[in-house]
Amino acid sequence: MKKVRIGMIGSGYIGRCHAIAYAQAATVFALKGEIVREMLAEVNPQLAQEKAQAFGFTRATGDWRELVSDPQIDVVDICAPNFLHKEMALEAIRHGKHVYSEKPLALSVADAEAMTRAAQQAGVKTLVGFNYMKNPTSQLAKEIIARGEIGKVVHFYGTHNEDYLANPATPRDWHCQQALAGLGALGDLAAHIVNMAHYLVGGITEVSGDMQTVITERPDPQALDRLLPVENEDQASALLRFSNGAHGVIETSRIACGSKMGLTYVVTGTKGTLRYTQERMAELALYLHDDEAGRQGFKTILTGPAHPDYANFCVSAGHGIGFNDQKTVEIRDLINGVAADDPMWPDFAEGLQVSKVLEAIAVSAKERRWINV
Amino acid sequence: MKKVRIGMIGSGYIGRCHAIAYAQAATVFALKGEIVREMLAEVNPQLAQEKAQAFGFTRATGDWRELVSDPQIDVVDICAPNFLHKEMALEAIRHGKHVYSEKPLALSVADAEAMTRAAQQAGVKTLVGFNYMKNPTSQLAKEIIARGEIGKVVHFYGTHNEDYLANPATPRDWHCQQALAGLGALGDLAAHIVNMAHYLVGGITEVSGDMQTVITERPDPQALDRLLPVENEDQASALLRFSNGAHGVIETSRIACGSKMGLTYVVTGTKGTLRYTQERMAELALYLHDDEAGRQGFKTILTGPAHPDYANFCVSAGHGIGFNDQKTVEIRDLINGVAADDPMWPDFAEGLQVSKVLEAIAVSAKERRWINV
Amino acid sequence: MKKVRIGMIGSGYIGRCHAIAYAQAATVFALKGEIVREMLAEVNPQLAQEKAQAFGFTRATGDWRELVSDPQIDVVDICAPNFLHKEMALEAIRHGKHVYSEKPLALSVADAEAMTRAAQQAGVKTLVGFNYMKNPTSQLAKEIIARGEIGKVVHFYGTHNEDYLANPATPRDWHCQQALAGLGALGDLAAHIVNMAHYLVGGITEVSGDMQTVITERPDPQALDRLLPVENEDQASALLRFSNGAHGVIETSRIACGSKMGLTYVVTGTKGTLRYTQERMAELALYLHDDEAGRQGFKTILTGPAHPDYANFCVSAGHGIGFNDQKTVEIRDLINGVAADDPMWPDFAEGLQVSKVLEAIAVSAKERRWINV
Amino acid sequence: MKKVRIGMIGSGYIGRCHAIAYAQAATVFALKGEIVREMLAEVNPQLAQEKAQAFGFTRATGDWRELVSDPQIDVVDICAPNFLHKEMALEAIRHGKHVYSEKPLALSVADAEAMTRAAQQAGVKTLVGFNYMKNPTSQLAKEIIARGEIGKVVHFYGTHNEDYLANPATPRDWHCQQALAGLGALGDLAAHIVNMAHYLVGGITEVSGDMQTVITERPDPQALDRLLPVENEDQASALLRFSNGAHGVIETSRIACGSKMGLTYVVTGTKGTLRYTQERMAELALYLHDDEAGRQGFKTILTGPAHPDYANFCVSAGHGIGFNDQKTVEIRDLINGVAADDPMWPDFAEGLQVSKVLEAIAVSAKERRWINV
Repeated sequence: MKKVRIGMIGSGYIGRCHAIAYAQAATVFALKGEIVREMLAEVNPQLAQEKAQAFGFTRATGDWRELVSDPQIDVVDICAPNFLHKEMALEAIRHGKHVYSEKPLALSVADAEAMTRAAQQAGVKTLVGFNYMKNPTSQLAKEIIARGEIGKVVHFYGTHNEDYLANPATPRDWHCQQALAGLGALGDLAAHIVNMAHYLVGGITEVSGDMQTVITERPDPQALDRLLPVENEDQASALLRFSNGAHGVIETSRIACGSKMGLTYVVTGTKGTLRYTQERMAELALYLHDDEAGRQGFKTILTGPAHPDYANFCVSAGHGIGFNDQKTVEIRDLINGVAADDPMWPDFAEGLQVSKVLEAIAVSAKERRWINV
Repeated sequence: MKKVRIGMIGSGYIGRCHAIAYAQAATVFALKGEIVREMLAEVNPQLAQEKAQAFGFTRATGDWRELVSDPQIDVVDICAPNFLHKEMALEAIRHGKHVYSEKPLALSVADAEAMTRAAQQAGVKTLVGFNYMKNPTSQLAKEIIARGEIGKVVHFYGTHNEDYLANPATPRDWHCQQALAGLGALGDLAAHIVNMAHYLVGGITEVSGDMQTVITERPDPQALDRLLPVENEDQASALLRFSNGAHGVIETSRIACGSKMGLTYVVTGTKGTLRYTQERMAELALYLHDDEAGRQGFKTILTGPAHPDYANFCVSAGHGIGFNDQKTVEIRDLINGVAADDPMWPDFAEGLQVSKVLEAIAVSAKERRWINV
Repeated sequence: MKKVRIGMIGSGYIGRCHAIAYAQAATVFALKGEIVREMLAEVNPQLAQEKAQAFGFTRATGDWRELVSDPQIDVVDICAPNFLHKEMALEAIRHGKHVYSEKPLALSVADAEAMTRAAQQAGVKTLVGFNYMKNPTSQLAKEIIARGEIGKVVHFYGTHNEDYLANPATPRDWHCQQALAGLGALGDLAAHIVNMAHYLVGGITEVSGDMQTVITERPDPQALDRLLPVENEDQASALLRFSNGAHGVIETSRIACGSKMGLTYVVTGTKGTLRYTQERMAELALYLHDDEAGRQGFKTILTGPAHPDYANFCVSAGHGIGFNDQKTVEIRDLINGVAADDPMWPDFAEGLQVSKVLEAIAVSAKERRWINV
Repeated sequence: MKKVRIGMIGSGYIGRCHAIAYAQAATVFALKGEIVREMLAEVNPQLAQEKAQAFGFTRATGDWRELVSDPQIDVVDICAPNFLHKEMALEAIRHGKHVYSEKPLALSVADAEAMTRAAQQAGVKTLVGFNYMKNPTSQLAKEIIARGEIGKVVHFYGTHNEDYLANPATPRDWHCQQALAGLGALGDLAAHIVNMAHYLVGGITEVSGDMQTVITERPDPQALDRLLPVENEDQASALLRFSNGAHGVIETSRIACGSKMGLTYVVTGTKGTLRYTQERMAELALYLHDDEAGRQGFKTILTGPAHPDYANFCVSAGHGIGFNDQKTVEIRDLINGVAADDPMWPDFAEGLQVSKVLEAIAVSAKERRWINV
């Protein structure tokens, strides 16, 4: 079986998630290629070595450039901070590597375009880590919509709200700095819900956005009694128009007290409605307008082996899969895409399209007018 | 005890609700005035007589003008179709009656302004039937916000969605005709959620709206094989800015499959969040950010005697009050307002303010730009 | 229309509920008789007079014997403390009155038998206030079961849990005294869930029970530093066998922290399952095993005009009816039963049957063996 | 680091779960020993070889006796059918292996006693696969109870309901045969909830049980038009008494339509209550009676890094762990127990205690009397 040799850059929050997914993927799925955890890069050799061992990678390096140019690497997996995505991806592409990047693809549309163009010209494969759409429950939502079970989609409401910055005493970190993060909640969180809207409904053509930095200053992590400016938005909302005529709204916040994993959506069609929240990731609520009078209602479907990809984890319904399992589905797509040329999506082109929507919202919010995406 | 003699115009959907509330109000509350169900007007004398008997009114008339000019009437209660509110209210005011009108106050801001001005000049008292804010659960939400328990409000998301026109085969009725209804879902449904936003958060200063008529033609009720145009919006959404700096979104739809009583809100503050849906009208979910680590979460408060007005219905928590009970609270406000000059809100000025917001959304949607309210 | 003249004894917790229901019933329903709130009895003339006025009764008395013998009374409505039910009912029956009694019918099976026999011999009509089964949602449950939609019932789990005595510092009151209350949680609460089991599933033939007084002493309300014994059970559970072969369990507690109106049931059939909790009294969850694979799940049905009795309160689904509205349905049954000989259930025979089940559980718990009901 | 060499017998439903957990455990946790997937046994060499490759085991065998006697094996992991547990475990113990067995430990108390005694005499370590208690959410429940946050436990209600045999057309398989399965729903499902009751509340001393085979015959899988007898119970219930004075009830069913993973519990204490269902395995509902009046309610805690073991999977709250992740926690306990002598529980002694409770329920149901465990 063809080997797919992974070079992973970064081992923090999402790197850990990738590592767990690499570890279990071959047991969960009958993959079309063999995962080889070849090399891990971190900011210094010691950390790299330590994490390589913890995460089951053979080699380690303190220099990501060494990794992207290594001839034994087939796929560069970028789990590094967002502001580095562009440079790393371009270097990896220059060396002919397939690139698997965490979201957001880049800090700006211009950067995302450069990355997408470079990948297309080099003929390498790309994948962006919008893992929530890989959850069997959201795959089920897609299936229900695609089969027309809820009719023609007329409305989408989606959020990605969390509260990791709800406390004003939380020191400023990279999330709040434009040079490191680009957009605020839009870039960090809303990227997921825009991708989900694309996946479930289709292209977004126009937006009218609004956004706000609620907590305008935060303590300097080096000197907590000194305040530093917050440079991007804490919350944002946008009216949407989709290419297929549907209307919609998305909202995002990083100060939404109580929302821990607040990716939610309501998709309304002419014949029914779907409701979902990622905090109950095993449940999809489905309403069908043509149900018999007196027996109408939202039905809570527990994801199970009748739904996409679930049975690989467990053959009993309702037993539940977790956050890292979504990433495992994504890595299945990566391996089968690279080893057997299976379709791989969301690719850089989708990552770019998400960036365009997010940037359009930000521009719209500043200029206070509708913007075409 | 001072008598408060009611003349009610209209006995349909909401008239029935008023009638039930009048019937029980004096048993539920120790009122400051005596409710006298004096006269009921309907479109003809026979129907008026029949409904007067069913609803416990002493006299009946087939001519509403007779009612509004009757010297034995203190309060004119308008449950007639929306397009008649203005004329009826102005006539009632001209005869010095207090006016209790169902929402929406009028079909246009101009009409609502005329009514509000007339009432102010005549010195009569006014009340508009935004009954959902009278639910003890939403009164509790108000109390929690007013006491600062969730900090400063930074975001409001509200909906009033129903699905009574989700079926395209439903014939066109007055809801879909501008001359009879004015706005569509905005006027019929969103009036409630705008009032709720005012009640819970404060004044709305700017809006960017969008709206859509999804089902553009419906069968003629007189000849089902002929189609008639739908003249107003099925769904609408708007970005909001509040005078206190909070941002927000409201949405409304009359084709939202599965939403039977979809008045919902999420109020996010700097220290906590409230979540509510009218379909579970006895429950308010409260999250407090300062709860101990590991013990944070949304707490489902079941309304009970510790909350406003509930104990008048039942002294045990969680036993539940219903739709008509909200109206009973409203009628308590009416009677105490008229008999003892207690404050009475939402009055015509609030009804006008709601109209201004709704009209601003409609204008914004047509002109595709932000509008100051 | 035939007058039905009510004499109500007691005006406390449940008396207030009856009064509200009497006030609204004729507006909600097209009754077959005219409700006349004729006389109210309380422990002294002053209280009786005050409550008669508040609740809309014409006459008042400080002596219930005067009420039960008054020739102008058709129905004696007993809202007095439980230990008085027997004497009052027997006296009322002796004077040929129809009797409407709150639950529990009596403190013992022997008393309930005497009352039931007396009523049968006198040919008067009887009704017991098990109002929860009058909720349209539970009527819907009954309809679903009766139509065979969930197949043959194989299991029933029901609770009636509350927490009104969860705090050990709450002084001892009549609930805790055998002479005044008879059984504890079984008599006060479980009576409802046993009636519901009868209504939804059928007769109970055998029980194995267990029970416990958890808080064995409580403060004397007259001298809080002195403790008095609690004389009946705080919690109880029982295995059940039904005459139709189904098995089941019921549980009850008055110290179940957090249960405010914890009447709940799960009815499992060979083809589906129903789930209900009174705290969400507008919702019934229905699972049908024959739903298509991949689209199975519990459907949350919001009660509406397609369901029994709901449309009399409101013609829109999901708008919600409350605790007192259930009692209003019950009073509709009372008036139509007395005025037009409509069937009236649950009658004293059912009240007796509930007592037999409760007493069997108590005996079973003491003797630690199965008991035939 | 000390190697822990695993020999796994069986690769079906639960074997797959073990395999996934072995694959990810070292990435998720910093283990105290190195997992070596040494050998896999199946019913024939071909299947064994195929599954060994799929699950990452080095060697394969068609004869489990070869595995248990192999000197390169430290731990024998028994995922074989229940009726083989005893023989395999005894053989493994005879060869000095540590034994990790799936539940139920054995088909009878006598067998479980023999196994437990043999393990104790041989001084080998044992672990039984009651994985649900390893979920961070149930660990949180344990923590809350242990800290006294809900006071003294006074009541436990637990279920383990599923519906895998709800359809009478499902052919008879080993689940329904005494020689292969022993008890029915009690053995297959209730074992988990009895273990959970032990974990959360403590020892069970007396039971009064009832049970029923609802579908008494099922199609022969070899000839579907022929019916074979079902030899054990479809559903069972029992009253419980705990050694610490609490009362309780457990129920189990394999025909509970709609229950996909119906392990649920409600633990009531003198100061609060916990509610849990495995179908929402990330949520624990906590009610505290001493919360301020008007602010009481069940709080839904989403499991996160503030709770036991969660942060190893993800450092953000509410992101969710799955069924296999529970098993991964269990395998962490296995490896650390074997490699570093960390405490390992639930061991065979607990498996035996669970068997005693289940057998007592079955005997009680047959003899229709209370049984001491």
